[in-house]
Parts: sequence; structure tokens; C-alpha cells
Amino acid sequence: MNIRQYLPILEWLPAYRLATLNQDLLAAIIVTVMLVPQSLAYAMLAGLPPEVGLYASIAPLLVYAILGTSRTLSVGPVAVIALMTATTAGSIVAPESESYLTMVILLTFISGGMLTLMGVFRLGFLANFLSHPVISGFITASAVIIAFSQLKHLLGVSASGHNFPEVLAALVQALPDLKVITLLLGGGTLLFLFAARRWLGVAMLRLGCSQGIASGAGRLAPILAVVVTTWMTAQFSLAEKGVAVVGEVPAGLPPLAMPTSDWSLWGQLWVGALLISIVGFVESVSVGQTLAAKRRERIEPDQELIALGCSNLGAAFSTGMPVTGGFSRSVVNFDAGARTPAAGAFTALGILAVILWLTPLLQTLPIATLAATIIIAVLSLIDFHAIRHTWRYSKADFSAMLITVVITLLQGVEAGILAGVGLSLALHVYRTSRPHTAVVGRVAGTEHFRNVERHSVETTPELLVIRVDESLYFPNARYLEDQIQALVSQRPKVRHLVLSCQAVNHIDASALDSLESINARLKDAGIKLHLAEVKGPVMDRLELIGFPKQLSGAMFMSTFDAWQSLKAEH
Amino acid sequence: MNIRQYLPILEWLPAYRLATLNQDLLAAIIVTVMLVPQSLAYAMLAGLPPEVGLYASIAPLLVYAILGTSRTLSVGPVAVIALMTATTAGSIVAPESESYLTMVILLTFISGGMLTLMGVFRLGFLANFLSHPVISGFITASAVIIAFSQLKHLLGVSASGHNFPEVLAALVQALPDLKVITLLLGGGTLLFLFAARRWLGVAMLRLGCSQGIASGAGRLAPILAVVVTTWMTAQFSLAEKGVAVVGEVPAGLPPLAMPTSDWSLWGQLWVGALLISIVGFVESVSVGQTLAAKRRERIEPDQELIALGCSNLGAAFSTGMPVTGGFSRSVVNFDAGARTPAAGAFTALGILAVILWLTPLLQTLPIATLAATIIIAVLSLIDFHAIRHTWRYSKADFSAMLITVVITLLQGVEAGILAGVGLSLALHVYRTSRPHTAVVGRVAGTEHFRNVERHSVETTPELLVIRVDESLYFPNARYLEDQIQALVSQRPKVRHLVLSCQAVNHIDASALDSLESINARLKDAGIKLHLAEVKGPVMDRLELIGFPKQLSGAMFMSTFDAWQSLKAEH
Repeated sequence: MNIRQYLPILEWLPAYRLATLNQDLLAAIIVTVMLVPQSLAYAMLAGLPPEVGLYASIAPLLVYAILGTSRTLSVGPVAVIALMTATTAGSIVAPESESYLTMVILLTFISGGMLTLMGVFRLGFLANFLSHPVISGFITASAVIIAFSQLKHLLGVSASGHNFPEVLAALVQALPDLKVITLLLGGGTLLFLFAARRWLGVAMLRLGCSQGIASGAGRLAPILAVVVTTWMTAQFSLAEKGVAVVGEVPAGLPPLAMPTSDWSLWGQLWVGALLISIVGFVESVSVGQTLAAKRRERIEPDQELIALGCSNLGAAFSTGMPVTGGFSRSVVNFDAGARTPAAGAFTALGILAVILWLTPLLQTLPIATLAATIIIAVLSLIDFHAIRHTWRYSKADFSAMLITVVITLLQGVEAGILAGVGLSLALHVYRTSRPHTAVVGRVAGTEHFRNVERHSVETTPELLVIRVDESLYFPNARYLEDQIQALVSQRPKVRHLVLSCQAVNHIDASALDSLESINARLKDAGIKLHLAEVKGPVMDRLELIGFPKQLSGAMFMSTFDAWQSLKAEH
Repeated sequence: MNIRQYLPILEWLPAYRLATLNQDLLAAIIVTVMLVPQSLAYAMLAGLPPEVGLYASIAPLLVYAILGTSRTLSVGPVAVIALMTATTAGSIVAPESESYLTMVILLTFISGGMLTLMGVFRLGFLANFLSHPVISGFITASAVIIAFSQLKHLLGVSASGHNFPEVLAALVQALPDLKVITLLLGGGTLLFLFAARRWLGVAMLRLGCSQGIASGAGRLAPILAVVVTTWMTAQFSLAEKGVAVVGEVPAGLPPLAMPTSDWSLWGQLWVGALLISIVGFVESVSVGQTLAAKRRERIEPDQELIALGCSNLGAAFSTGMPVTGGFSRSVVNFDAGARTPAAGAFTALGILAVILWLTPLLQTLPIATLAATIIIAVLSLIDFHAIRHTWRYSKADFSAMLITVVITLLQGVEAGILAGVGLSLALHVYRTSRPHTAVVGRVAGTEHFRNVERHSVETTPELLVIRVDESLYFPNARYLEDQIQALVSQRPKVRHLVLSCQAVNHIDASALDSLESINARLKDAGIKLHLAEVKGPVMDRLELIGFPKQLSGAMFMSTFDAWQSLKAEH
């Protein structure tokens, strides 16, 4: 066991230089400024008091700096996980109730524990069961849900519901109560942010600014919006005119918390915690891999599980909420020049300074401003390109994406992911249950065999060569029997049947029984069954059970060997 | 649409001959004599009054004669389905309650409807999801449960429970109450039947009898036991001495029945009905195919679904219980010389005659005798050979079998089957999530490529040929990225990487994304990615999305083509 594998900080800390310190410090200042409003916004999205978002941006960053393998990943609250937190914890107690925070802390703790255990037992591959179409569909639907959930803050009304249609209906009903000043403030911020994202960068590039400065200016827009609207609200006493504001944020260190040991709650929360863990891990690893590849660094998925898990445990014990490596915050960190995880630790100290000394500045920050920044952030998550691409490439994958979107909108995030994963697996099983088989012939002058219907190839009436394009296992075992029966019955001259097994990666016990009965039935019909190109691992198993001896024909190394030797017989 | 396809009776009835009539009549008489005690026994096993077993052997046989595609299959109550009926209906109301029969009739109706619909929509392939190890495991566990459930009748005590451990505990507790006369009668019958099955046939063969007569004599043993013990019980008034007997069986036509329309019951019964349908179908089709193959006949699985479905609907409307094609009764029918489904119709008339006129003869038939015949019948279902065979061939398949046995014993038949099917699918997904890949080289002097670790082959340092032994889909997409990364990092000289895709039967959207990023990463590292032997259907999809143009290398028809043309470059 290598201690460095589990404590990646030992890799970079001993070689830490002053130049790196300067770069990391600068990045940390930029990220801190960006993170403060973002953390408040995502805490609000999760139905929590704003300071919880700040708490969740301290301990996790420190823990990740010690355990994480990505140099530039920035962990903290992110939009999709905040939504999942609201759904899971909100399904047990209402966000207004006192025990809601207790529930979120327990959820964070369970999720952190699960991630850590998955890392220890190297179960990172479980994340692979979220197929890309399911992830796209889930993120798209979440973005729509989040955007609509924020509209009420822009309108200054109250409207809530358990799923998308309910939220929409409540919003429409509440329309007559809309507050004009809030709408002007929030709508104005939204338009400003949208315009900044859409045109600012382009305009600056045209004016001759560098790419880095142009994209940096775009990122500064939300900060500007926060500063201006907070100042306006204070200046014109808008809070007294009905504009909802963040209000007093308690100053001081994050309070310590202990997860409750009420086991019935564990039972209710674990499915949600598992999905939060897996979705968070997938998001974090994708971001981490993308950034690492740019600088030819590597991240270790199993160690990342441990790092993320411990970060969440850190969040749980310091009154936080579930965290993961976020895309926008990590990109800012990367672009701002962070070289090592120390940048993350400095960011944590920055947030700590804010919560100790600067909370009065946040008092008149309008909720509508936060809502506008959330809406702009999540709308960029909708990936129309991926949707079109999937539609063109595969209708089956697209249907899994569509089901994920629809069920997420109608039934919520947990149901959506589970339905998408379930459908993806079912489609795979259905596809493999009716395998493609091809009658193949020899490409003239070569040792290569291809489908008689697609290529111009040589065949012999006594010899039928069938390529089975699938592993043989129980869902398709009987189907193969039927197909061979059908192919043979159309060709009365056939004396030898060669199953070309280059695509057969596994033969399970059910398929072995089928092969045995195919062998027996063909023998009765005066046809010998041969196998060709059986792979090593499959062959080992067949020999274990003595199958080659039972076979009426022979086992050939290649289809060409079979072709040559059987043709010589006639 | 061909009417004959849906009414197979039109195939054989017009050509019906007197000689066939004689053969069918003789078979019908033999089967009737065997079916009477068997039907009573399976009704008892299902927790129903004995006459229900007889009712279920009339209408279904007539319906199957019209719709069935097997010439010799005999439908009626069978042991495993009777057990599943008892479990499913018994989980809603106790077998003693008045509404129990109502529940069984509804179950029969739902199951019949499901089978018919599955036939109409050609969903017979669903039966393939019961892998052979799961079927073996399920049947073995059912046989154990059934055998133990009958012990109380042999001992003359009452003992019941919801699962195997409960039944066993109740039996042990009830031991002190055992009735000696019942035990002598039942135990004697059991020993006699066991001896007859084990040694009678062998002894007669040694004495020079033909195989047919020897096996026929074995089948007569249960009839003999029924006749002798019934006579003894009547003669010595054993019923008054505490031996439980069948008692008065109401004479007359089966009463008509209507399934209840209580929808909440439908909701509770449908899972059980579905499993009964699928298990029944699998058993019936296996028996039908085995017998058909012996006479070079064919059965049509989808039409069989319709025939079995309508047989069950017939049973439901005539106060019956779920039925399917049984192994022992069909074999007797076949051996007795039945040529057409008319033999089944004649058997139905024979049973009808029994229930109209001969029920008084059944009055003193001891329950212990029926229990002994059930025990002997089900013990032969335990297939030790299949268990050993599966253990040797595949530990994964064996574990699916074992889980099915254990869960069936502990939690009942439904849970056992579902656990077995679930585990089988999970094992498949797990296996395909970590595909076998092999670095391959050329078998000298041929165009054939094999694993460098298993065969002595030619390789070139600039050229890495990898064969991926699995379809590429979401559970293994990321795994492939990691594997290629690892293989390439060990071989600094590599300039070309050829993915040999003869075993890749499908590439889904997630795997396509992975291929795109593998292509990009290899390009960054100065390595070209080539694909060889991509199959037609996979190629069509890749072209749809323009993948071949994105590829840094080329697409080759065969691995050998790739080898030749890339080697020529150096």
C-alpha cells in the first residue's frame, strides 16, 4: 500500500514554490468573489438558509485539497445536486420545517459515507451505469425544473409544488400577485446577464481584447449584477417596498453538526443519497478529466470517490449541504491560473473571511438577483447539440433520453434517473435477445468472410457458414435455435454447418444447453455442426465440460480453416 | 392471415382415420385412469376441494385439442403450478376461507388472458428471460417445498406455514400428534412407489420384458396404490379410525364460474399470474418440443401461448385452476400411442364420465396415498445432474441457480424467480461492463490474428492491434478508455492503434462519445486510431453521424488489410 495514493497532497506540497503560491492566491481571490453569491443561490435552491451554502464551501474545499487528485477541481454546492437535495429531503419534511436542515445534514452524511465506501471498495464503475443519454436527459430536465422554480422569485410571488406541472400551475395561479419592483429588478438582471453572456465576449473580442479577458469579463457580469442590485436595494430601501432580500446572515464559524441516528430516516433517504452520490461523482469526474487532459495531468477515479466522500462528510459535520466538483467554479479556478489544490484551500479561507466579517454587506442582496443568476447558469446546461446528435445516431438511445426527461419533469429527479437507467438496460437486453446473424461467404482470394447479402462472396451449397453477432446467453438462447432451424430448412443440400464465433464473447449455461440441442437436432438431420474462431476464454469453458467431444463436427481455429478442410471433403 | 395458423385442428381433423381413432381412444383410457388421482392430488396441493382438479381436466383439454400445435401434449393441473397457485392466492386469503376458490378462478382467468395476449402480440420471447439455471433452481426448490408440504398428510397431522422454514417448524412441533395408521398407510405407499420406480422397471427388463412394458408397469404403480389403499380403507373402515380420506366428491357437470371484477384483487394477483403464465408456458413448450422432436413434428410457440391461454380461460369459466402442459401426463399420452389432439378430447370425456358417475368410488381414497404419489412425482423433478453440470461449467450461472433455490425456499416462489432472473441479468451486465480485450498478432503465414498471450504470433512495435471482445455500450464505455490508455502508456513506440471490431456487435451513444474522446486523446499523443472489421449494421450507424471522417486513421475491411497497409508505411 502506497500512502501517497491515498494522500495526494504529499505529491504536490513538498514541491510547493513561491511562484505557485502567487498564482494560487490570485485564483482563490477570484473564485471567492464568484462563489459567495453562487453559494447563497444554491442554498436557496435547496430550500436552506443562505449561510448553509457558505458553510458548505469551507470544510469540503479544505478536505479536497488534501485528498483530491485533480489540481484544479473546485468542490461546493452545485445546481443539480441542490435540486436533488431539495427533492429528496423535501419528500420527507417541508423545507419550512425546523427538521429540514437536520434531514439535509443526514443526507449529506449518508452520501459522503457512500462515496467513501465506493472509493475504498473501488466501485467507481457503478457510475458507468448512467449512460450519456440518461445524464444529458436528466441534466436538461433538471435545468428546466430549476429555471421554472426560480421564476417565482423574479415575480415576487410564492408558488411551490412537488413536480414540474404543479410548480407551473402554482406559478400561473400566483401571477396576479406579482410585485412590479421585484420583477423590474429581477427581469433587468436576467436581461443583463443574458446579454452579457451572449454578446459581451463577442463584442470585446471584436474590440481587440484577448480571449482570456473577454471570457473573464463575461464571468464578472454576475458579480457586477450582485453589487449593483444590492447597492440599489440599500440606497432606495427597496426591501421596505416589498423586494425580498437575503436578510441577516449570521456571522461566525460554521456550527458543528452531528447526523441524526434515527434509522427510519436512513431507510427513507438512502436511495436519494445514492443517486446524489452517483450523479455528483459523474459530474465531478467529467469536469476533472476534462481539465486534467488540458494540462496532461491524470485523475484517479477511485481516489476521487474517497476525496468527494470525505468532502461531503466534512460538509455534514459543519452544517453544510451535499457538494461536488462544479463545472463553472472549476473552470473559473482553472482559467484564473490555479496550479495546485492549495488554491482551493485559500478559497475556503476567503469564504471563511466573508462569513466572519462581511455578512452585513449581503443583507440587502435581492433574492431576485440570485434567481436570475441561477436561471442563466442552468440554461447553459441544456445541451441541444447532444439531443440532436443522439436522435440522429440511435433512436433507442434517444428514447432513453426522452424517458429520462419526461419522467424527471413529471415525477422528479430520482424517478427520472431510475427510469432512464432501467430503460437503457432493458433496451440492451432486448437488442441482445434477438441477435443479428449473417450467412457469410469468402471474399474471393482472401481468408476473410463477410455477409453474403452485403458483399460479393463465394459460397458452397454443402457448407453453411453462419456468423452470430452476439454473445450467447439466456435471453437469446432459444432464438438461436429457431434461426438455425429456419436457415437449415431453406437449404436442403447443406451437410456442414459452421458457426463462426468471433463475435461470441460468452456462452452461458442456458446457451450451452441450446448448443447441445442444436448439435443433436442437426445430427438427426444428417448435418455436422462445427465451431470456428472460438475465443480463448469461451473455449476454456467448453473444454471444461467436454463439449468439443460431444460435437458432431470439429473445432476450427479460423473460418478459413473450416472452409478449406470441409470443402476438401466434397 | 391464415385461419389454419390459428386453428390447428383444421390441419389434422379433415385427415382423421379410423386407425388413428383406435390409437387415440386407447391412449385416452390410459391417461384418464392416471389423471383422476393426479388431478385430485394437485387440487389438494393448491389448497382446493378435490373436484376442482377434475374440473380443470375437462374444458382445458377440449380447448387445447382445437387450438394446440402439439399432437401429444396433455394439459391440466401440474405440481409446480399448483404450488404457485397456493402461494399467490394464499397470500391474499387463507385456503380455508370461502373466497379462496373465487381468488383461484380470478388468478386462472388473469393468467389465461395474459397468455392469450402474449400469443396475439407474439411475446413468446419473454419466456427466454427464465434462464435454464433459474428454471432448474426454481423447480428443485419447489419440489422440496411440495414434498415437505405433503409430509403432514403422511403423518396425519396439521401443520402449515408461509414458507419452507415455517412449514418445517410446524411439522416438527406437530410430530407428537402423529396418527400411526395413517403413517403406516402413507409410508407403505411411499415405499412401494419408490421401490416400483427404482427397481420394477429394471427387474422387468432383466426378466426379458420390452422397454415399453417395463416403463408402463412403473406408471401403473400409482394406480395400483390408489386402488389397494382405497379398498383397504373401505374394507377396514379406516376413515372412522382417523385416516383422512377424500370424502364425498360432488357428482355432476363442472359449475360455470365468472371471474370477479374486484379491481383491487387484480392489482394484487397480476404479478403472481404473470409468473404462473411464464413458468407454465416454459414447462409446456419444453415438453411439447421434446415430444415433437421425437416424431419430427413442430410446435409453434406463439400459437401455443394462445392455446394455453384459452385453455386457462376455459378452466376459469368452469370452476377450474391454472393448467399447463404437464410432463408426466404428456409422456404417458405419447407412450400410450396418442396420434392427435383428439386423444386429449377423449380424455376430457373420460374425466367427465368419472365425475358424473364414478365419484362414489373416490370417497374412501386416503389423502395419505395422494400425498405419497405427489412426493414421488416431485422428487423426480430434482435434477442433480443439471446442478453439478452448471457448477462445473460456470460459477456465475451456478450462483443464479443457488440464489433461486435459497430465495424460493425462504421467501416463496415469486420472490425466488424474480431474484434469479434479476441476478442473471445483473451478472450479464457486470460481465459485459469489464470486457475482455486482447492484444493480437498475426498467426505467421495466415491472415488470422490471435491473442499474443495465448498463441505464438507476429507483432510490430509501431502497430498495436487490440481486439475488443464485447459490444461497446454504456456500462463499459469508460472502461475501454482506461484500458486503451493503459495499453498505450506501456508501449512508447506505438504510432498506430487498430481496434479490431469483429466482436463489437453494437456501439451505443455513450460508447460513441468514448470512441470520440479516445480518438482525440490518441491524436494528441501522436497516435492514429484505426478501426478494422466493423460489421455492416455498426458501420451504417457510424457513417450516419460522420464518424469515419472524424477518425484520425482509417477504416479497414479486415485486420489483415490494416496490418499490411500500416506496416507498409514504416
